[in-house]
Amino acid sequence: MQHFALIGSGFMGNVHAASLARHPSVSFDLVADIDEERAGATADKYGARAISVDSVFESDVDAVLIASSTDTHADLMERAADAGKAIYCEKPIDLDLERAKRACHAVERAGVAFMIGFNRRFDRSHAGVKEAIDAGEIGRIEIVQLTSRGPTPPPISYVKVSGGQMRDQTIHFFDLARWLTSDEPVEIFAMGGALIDPAVGEAGDVDTSLGVMRMASGALCQIDCSRRTAYGYDERLEVFGSLGMAESRRQRVSDVSLYKGRYVVEAGMHPDWFDRVEETYYAALDAFVRVLEGENLALPSLVDGLAAQTIADAATRSLQSGTPVRLDS
Amino acid sequence: MQHFALIGSGFMGNVHAASLARHPSVSFDLVADIDEERAGATADKYGARAISVDSVFESDVDAVLIASSTDTHADLMERAADAGKAIYCEKPIDLDLERAKRACHAVERAGVAFMIGFNRRFDRSHAGVKEAIDAGEIGRIEIVQLTSRGPTPPPISYVKVSGGQMRDQTIHFFDLARWLTSDEPVEIFAMGGALIDPAVGEAGDVDTSLGVMRMASGALCQIDCSRRTAYGYDERLEVFGSLGMAESRRQRVSDVSLYKGRYVVEAGMHPDWFDRVEETYYAALDAFVRVLEGENLALPSLVDGLAAQTIADAATRSLQSGTPVRLDS
Amino acid sequence: MQHFALIGSGFMGNVHAASLARHPSVSFDLVADIDEERAGATADKYGARAISVDSVFESDVDAVLIASSTDTHADLMERAADAGKAIYCEKPIDLDLERAKRACHAVERAGVAFMIGFNRRFDRSHAGVKEAIDAGEIGRIEIVQLTSRGPTPPPISYVKVSGGQMRDQTIHFFDLARWLTSDEPVEIFAMGGALIDPAVGEAGDVDTSLGVMRMASGALCQIDCSRRTAYGYDERLEVFGSLGMAESRRQRVSDVSLYKGRYVVEAGMHPDWFDRVEETYYAALDAFVRVLEGENLALPSLVDGLAAQTIADAATRSLQSGTPVRLDS
Amino acid sequence: MQHFALIGSGFMGNVHAASLARHPSVSFDLVADIDEERAGATADKYGARAISVDSVFESDVDAVLIASSTDTHADLMERAADAGKAIYCEKPIDLDLERAKRACHAVERAGVAFMIGFNRRFDRSHAGVKEAIDAGEIGRIEIVQLTSRGPTPPPISYVKVSGGQMRDQTIHFFDLARWLTSDEPVEIFAMGGALIDPAVGEAGDVDTSLGVMRMASGALCQIDCSRRTAYGYDERLEVFGSLGMAESRRQRVSDVSLYKGRYVVEAGMHPDWFDRVEETYYAALDAFVRVLEGENLALPSLVDGLAAQTIADAATRSLQSGTPVRLDS
Repeated sequence: MQHFALIGSGFMGNVHAASLARHPSVSFDLVADIDEERAGATADKYGARAISVDSVFESDVDAVLIASSTDTHADLMERAADAGKAIYCEKPIDLDLERAKRACHAVERAGVAFMIGFNRRFDRSHAGVKEAIDAGEIGRIEIVQLTSRGPTPPPISYVKVSGGQMRDQTIHFFDLARWLTSDEPVEIFAMGGALIDPAVGEAGDVDTSLGVMRMASGALCQIDCSRRTAYGYDERLEVFGSLGMAESRRQRVSDVSLYKGRYVVEAGMHPDWFDRVEETYYAALDAFVRVLEGENLALPSLVDGLAAQTIADAATRSLQSGTPVRLDS
Repeated sequence: MQHFALIGSGFMGNVHAASLARHPSVSFDLVADIDEERAGATADKYGARAISVDSVFESDVDAVLIASSTDTHADLMERAADAGKAIYCEKPIDLDLERAKRACHAVERAGVAFMIGFNRRFDRSHAGVKEAIDAGEIGRIEIVQLTSRGPTPPPISYVKVSGGQMRDQTIHFFDLARWLTSDEPVEIFAMGGALIDPAVGEAGDVDTSLGVMRMASGALCQIDCSRRTAYGYDERLEVFGSLGMAESRRQRVSDVSLYKGRYVVEAGMHPDWFDRVEETYYAALDAFVRVLEGENLALPSLVDGLAAQTIADAATRSLQSGTPVRLDS
Repeated sequence: MQHFALIGSGFMGNVHAASLARHPSVSFDLVADIDEERAGATADKYGARAISVDSVFESDVDAVLIASSTDTHADLMERAADAGKAIYCEKPIDLDLERAKRACHAVERAGVAFMIGFNRRFDRSHAGVKEAIDAGEIGRIEIVQLTSRGPTPPPISYVKVSGGQMRDQTIHFFDLARWLTSDEPVEIFAMGGALIDPAVGEAGDVDTSLGVMRMASGALCQIDCSRRTAYGYDERLEVFGSLGMAESRRQRVSDVSLYKGRYVVEAGMHPDWFDRVEETYYAALDAFVRVLEGENLALPSLVDGLAAQTIADAATRSLQSGTPVRLDS
Repeated sequence: MQHFALIGSGFMGNVHAASLARHPSVSFDLVADIDEERAGATADKYGARAISVDSVFESDVDAVLIASSTDTHADLMERAADAGKAIYCEKPIDLDLERAKRACHAVERAGVAFMIGFNRRFDRSHAGVKEAIDAGEIGRIEIVQLTSRGPTPPPISYVKVSGGQMRDQTIHFFDLARWLTSDEPVEIFAMGGALIDPAVGEAGDVDTSLGVMRMASGALCQIDCSRRTAYGYDERLEVFGSLGMAESRRQRVSDVSLYKGRYVVEAGMHPDWFDRVEETYYAALDAFVRVLEGENLALPSLVDGLAAQTIADAATRSLQSGTPVRLDS
């Protein structure tokens, strides 16, 4: 049984709380939040105990799940590392790449178990594609296609502080591209526009974009991103290789078909990203717990957390300059 | 907030416990089981309190979820009714139809809220078909097709006490047929055999069967059942009408496709019934809680619980006699 | 090169004419029809020669394709057999089973190559299911499901002389059931009604029906038939066995998907039976020509032509009596 | 009835011959080829007459279908235009863009009906996507994705004279992008490599490539191309807009599914491009004939033939320079 403290009981914190409560090998002991009332409500719901953030590091829990606001991640990671706690930290580590690297060094020095919350890697279908690749089913990888289209644009106020579409949205797919190919990009070119909302362009960002990358092996990757669909959350990927092609198809919300007249009307996509990926949070926690209990599984690492940010920075430079950018990996 | 006691903490009890813990409008207070240790373990996991069965009816919970063994259902229903508790009871009410009817009368007299656990009605896709029907999308119903194929036959010892395939497996689909058509069968014919295991035939049962029913409206229904597939759990239904056809398709375990040579290899069916229908348990609880909180939703009723048993009895007589059987509804 | 004469240049005759013109190993030489003008038009279109029916049997063609009206089939088969011509005859041989048998004996005595036009056996997808069965992929067959739903009911005048739904529509699926299972039915039960049009019932027929059959091996078959859909031509089959299940899915007219709002709208079914099965006519001819050129392929035989009619007769008796009917095969 | 002469009776010529023979409004009169024996064989098969190329322009046919080798297209177009014949010409007009333009001017001056053989526009599914766009179903176009992957690389000898992957393979998808968007590209960037065969790289070409284009409207297009798949011919496209998304899905060779163990094995892609697109040749001819008979349909025009070549040239320059290239349209 692994004893956990949860730091942060906002939306994401409660998503993790439900997984902690449900997992058979987890004892969900403590909840901390700067908003004590919020911490109390979550603790009550799941039979845990509310506690101050400071006290978490003095407690005897085995692991800390950090789901507080991004600007606190690096600091909390360092404190948890010092206290010898295993760490599951929501992404990103820090918007500032140098600050993020310092936190990573602290974790490395402490030698504690660590996982960054790249939960998409734990999607059943994406993981199925990865298994096919690793089993040699598709041979040498030649083309990767990734589609990321969210149903609703964030407010302009958020766009302005988000770091741009590449760092805020595409970054998850930079991680997927690295993970699927076990490879690093050497060149990236991005093309985009504010096709949905001119205000996004005025804020110096894009809401619709294409990116192409050349990996060190020579494999080519394509990513298309949109901030708004008229049909729900759309995530899809395919990996094409010398021996075959593996696809994680668009995911429908149910399996209903209605045959009428000239058409078949089927249930559409999940209404939002959370409905689509909810189960990946439990799967991610489960992988982390298994590692804590001694299994040998690959978890999204400190390096993974930093690498995706590095690519997003380069993509942003390509978007701004209109030319390809080389990555020295 | 609705306060619940759970009676029974075996496999099904723990499935319900996880839903009770997760539901935002539920306070999961008490767990009772004749095995006190088992009750204690479930209570600990979810922050509830273990208690004796007798004490449940003296407590101040609003509702009782009965997930103990079948032979205790009728008795517990009556006691819960007397205590004025709302009742969510696992199916069936009782294998003996007369005993089941007496328990139903007690619940009716008490006037408490009741739901029988026909969880398949809460499957997202099956419910989507029902919505299409109720919205008039398919017009007058003419043909219903239901497929029920489980991956692994039960042990012969179970077959001998199960009441036969019609009462044990097909019964859920008799319920779906009634629910989808809002109609009652007037005639049924069943044909079957022990095609998988001769021992099933020696025990007087079948493991593979077809059933056809004529509904009062004239609509025709087909049900095919098998106790064993070589490809996981297979459940599918379609409803054909004067204006269109609605289908709840076979459900795959993920959305992976692998293109190789002359074939596309896709992820297959769920490995077992529980993996396929797990989420319906939460959805069923949610419907019950909404009714307790005042919403006006149709729940599987006492009548529904009895009607499916009546059809299963008639189907068993048809199998044995080799002739169609009329139902006086 | 195989030299062919076509007898009959109505709708079906012209379907076959297009195949004869297109096939690389066929020399399409002669066209005969009691309507000489119609024969001339077809001959002109494809560069063949119009000729009288009598002259066909004195010509030096290798094979005769009989696509004239049903009441002429038996007579033309006998004349072609006497003249030593290979015979491809449209179904059925004759509505009168005794007359059909006499014609078959004549063909057998003459020893000429023969094929009855059960073209559905040559559908790519149905044939794919058959190949999977014959390759042992699904093991011992336990359940067969066949769906046959045509978009538009025939006129009542046709219904009255058609012999009834079993003999007119379901018969093709009785043939598919025999072909897929390599087995014969021993018992059949049919249930039906005039759900679409009461006039069909007044004419003594049904327009919607279910049939269940037990095969000699014990395998169970289900067939559902409707004379009218609101969504085009619907044909589907699946064969379930001890090692797996093979399905020939509903066939869409194209591969377009439109994602909008909560739904995905896909292209529907073929608008009519001919659009759905057109390519099977060429595939059937191709199989016949390959046999003429020495290949060893199984063609739908004289026995096949008679057997499906026998089952249709039994099914009709079951519909009328409301009881199961045994077949002595 | 439209009277046609066919020039060229090689592989493509015979594809067109079969369509001409089959079309109800076409009288297929003449076949010409520099190889007289080949012309005679085609003429015999379809009941047409073999003739010299020169004589075609003196004959009284209404239309000429040019399916001879590419280097003869421009010359034959000019001669047919002078003779006042309607012209259906296989693509491309001429590998030399200036020569192609001169031929186009001759056709324009003569004012005869003309169609370039961009047959993919007549694919049922691609055309379905176009219809959805033109009906306003997807709103303003924002992202277009096109996939073109052929099963088998051409021989190196062909690669050397092909003009490169952009001009030889991708060009059809440049046409589809223009047609679907009713728009012109203003910027293109291509990235590629010889990932399949180093000899292609030594010949100065690529066999795997990604292209991204910005259209005048701001819409973004992605094209991925490969010369070799391990799973047959793979063509797919999707158009994403402000109101929805339309897709022409990967096309399977049949509709067979085999359920076994953990997987569903389905029929794969068409084995080669011709098997995939065969029916588009008939559909393209049909459109041309309808225009000749007075219908008002949009056919692929002289402008379309030239525009795709212009884009392919720009894409080739981008591949070679490693930088984006602007198109002045």
